[in-house]
Amino acid sequence: MPNNASSVGIVSAQRALFETPLELASGATLSSYELVFETYGALNAERSNAILICHALSGHHHVAGRYSADDKAAGWWDNMVGPGKPIDTNRFFVVGVNNLGGCHGSTGPSSIDPATGQPWGSRFPVMTVPDWVTAQARLADRLGIGRWAAVIGGSLGGMQALHWSIAYPERIAHALVIASAPKLSAQNIAFNDVARQAILTDPDFCGGDFYAAGTIPRRGLRLARMLGHITYLSDDGMGEKFGRMLRSGEYKFGYDVEFEIESYLRYQGDKFSDYFDANTYLLMTKALDYFDPAKDYDGDLVAALKKASASFLVASFTSDWRFSPERSRETVKALIAAGKRVSYGEIESVHGHDAFLMTDQPYVDLMCAYLNRVAEEVNA
Amino acid sequence: MPNNASSVGIVSAQRALFETPLELASGATLSSYELVFETYGALNAERSNAILICHALSGHHHVAGRYSADDKAAGWWDNMVGPGKPIDTNRFFVVGVNNLGGCHGSTGPSSIDPATGQPWGSRFPVMTVPDWVTAQARLADRLGIGRWAAVIGGSLGGMQALHWSIAYPERIAHALVIASAPKLSAQNIAFNDVARQAILTDPDFCGGDFYAAGTIPRRGLRLARMLGHITYLSDDGMGEKFGRMLRSGEYKFGYDVEFEIESYLRYQGDKFSDYFDANTYLLMTKALDYFDPAKDYDGDLVAALKKASASFLVASFTSDWRFSPERSRETVKALIAAGKRVSYGEIESVHGHDAFLMTDQPYVDLMCAYLNRVAEEVNA
Repeated sequence: MPNNASSVGIVSAQRALFETPLELASGATLSSYELVFETYGALNAERSNAILICHALSGHHHVAGRYSADDKAAGWWDNMVGPGKPIDTNRFFVVGVNNLGGCHGSTGPSSIDPATGQPWGSRFPVMTVPDWVTAQARLADRLGIGRWAAVIGGSLGGMQALHWSIAYPERIAHALVIASAPKLSAQNIAFNDVARQAILTDPDFCGGDFYAAGTIPRRGLRLARMLGHITYLSDDGMGEKFGRMLRSGEYKFGYDVEFEIESYLRYQGDKFSDYFDANTYLLMTKALDYFDPAKDYDGDLVAALKKASASFLVASFTSDWRFSPERSRETVKALIAAGKRVSYGEIESVHGHDAFLMTDQPYVDLMCAYLNRVAEEVNA
Repeated sequence: MPNNASSVGIVSAQRALFETPLELASGATLSSYELVFETYGALNAERSNAILICHALSGHHHVAGRYSADDKAAGWWDNMVGPGKPIDTNRFFVVGVNNLGGCHGSTGPSSIDPATGQPWGSRFPVMTVPDWVTAQARLADRLGIGRWAAVIGGSLGGMQALHWSIAYPERIAHALVIASAPKLSAQNIAFNDVARQAILTDPDFCGGDFYAAGTIPRRGLRLARMLGHITYLSDDGMGEKFGRMLRSGEYKFGYDVEFEIESYLRYQGDKFSDYFDANTYLLMTKALDYFDPAKDYDGDLVAALKKASASFLVASFTSDWRFSPERSRETVKALIAAGKRVSYGEIESVHGHDAFLMTDQPYVDLMCAYLNRVAEEVNA
């Protein structure tokens, strides 16, 4: 496990206000918006060592480090980002950003709409991966980063990394696309829709304007998160960790919590419903559903990827059934067919989709090996 | 597809009142209860050609035939049960029964509790597979059936067939255990718990006493059914049938129904919430969670099966991820280790868990072949 010496230490978030209107894929326009972000490490004189970390459904800009000495939780990818870690802040200038529509500080549904003085709520526009990438590119401009040494993300974050390679081929040297997919399957969309329906039909959702109503759609968020967690873990991993263990050792013949897996899921759901914004959850799942870079190319992913000039690392985990290795191989095959440089790692892990956030040694080794090459290029 | 000539024709349900108290696994006692059932075909003079069909989570006693000439829907296994069909009513006397706790006519949570004159609601006891099998054995007594030629079931129905072989070894010649498992995995329980939480936290559930409140927990039931359907279909099957097809051909950038898979799931959920009882849903999922014949034998399934004297057909479907072929092979291995006669069929199908209700030809052929042998024994 990482020790304190390999931590980026105490960090703080920064804010950037953008007053150039942002036209979105939906046709809506955000006239102005703020992004909250963090940086770790130092940008070199050539401004060539910057890495962008893109977050997944419930992630944010707080990637590494702690906000105070007694902060109990480190950033969500603290195991991967820090001095001497795979994404080595001694060598790279690392940027984490909360995406538009988020609920961790960037402009989102719970922000005040300047046009009305009220929270955006149901009127906040639906966002897409391309919208996020455009906003991230503007942040790069602001930071003086013309070209990323790498854009890295897992799951929905991997979709952003992939889209970067298509939308701004000249601005990204490497795309690391981890535990991701070139588009959702019907089953993926189905799970997202059940989660959305749980939120949308919660009476406390109030059509998305629960801020004004003074309610929180906790029931819906809780169900969405419980369901999400099932898809993040592998069947085997869940079996190893929880099996059929009973909290009290005996059947209770009622509907209170009984199996350990129930206790785990309900705890995760309760915790999540206390802090996550319901409108953000809806919006993030829609961004997942909509992602399909091949759509503008008659469904031809190879054609979509032709423009890319980055090198790629695609990685998947054997027990991930949300975005299985087969889905990553689709990306790899299309990249090869498009004539791109691509490395592929299929990592043995019991951790399911969550493995992209974990510290399985072969995964750490793969990331280290690939990012060493990226660092060498930066210094060449 | 089956034609009219192979239908059992117009059928009607029968009722049986039992006034001997039934002690349940939970410790509760039902002082009296009714079972609703149907029969097809004729019991032979030796009373040796009876087959019991056990239903799964949302099934019931109406297995085959129609209630009137203009009845639009046939029984739920009409493709499998009828003259000349695999479960051939020219040769077998077939019994379908709605399990206790159901919502199709047998005593259940929506029935009137004679002690109070009010619907049972939250006071209806939790049922288990062994409880159902005991009740089914009493029905067999009533019908004068000392020994079943076969007990057949898919999914939760297969668990009942398996339990019959353990609880009443002398009363069952063949057990057909289809698309089932010897116990639920942590992931199986997790899905059930999300479905239960959707119902339990629906404000209209009223702690289970929604009959008195005049409400129906439609939101919860709808979510439970949507989620259930995802686990009944295979990823590939869902992909083939729905893929990423959009109802209107274009993204709408909102939360109304958009993808065809969403339309399908919401329709299934809506339909289900109109007729299925929420307390029955809870109870059926708990019976699934609790099923574990090895539990009384220190987790040793082989020991649990030692008492059985039936012959077994175990069948699974390649794309079933709810109860995968691996789960059926656990049963098969334990049966072999216990020295039982067992045939196993692993059937290629894209229909996922639902395949046990479908008409894939290799499945039909397997059932025909096995039941031909059962019929020959009956006539021997």
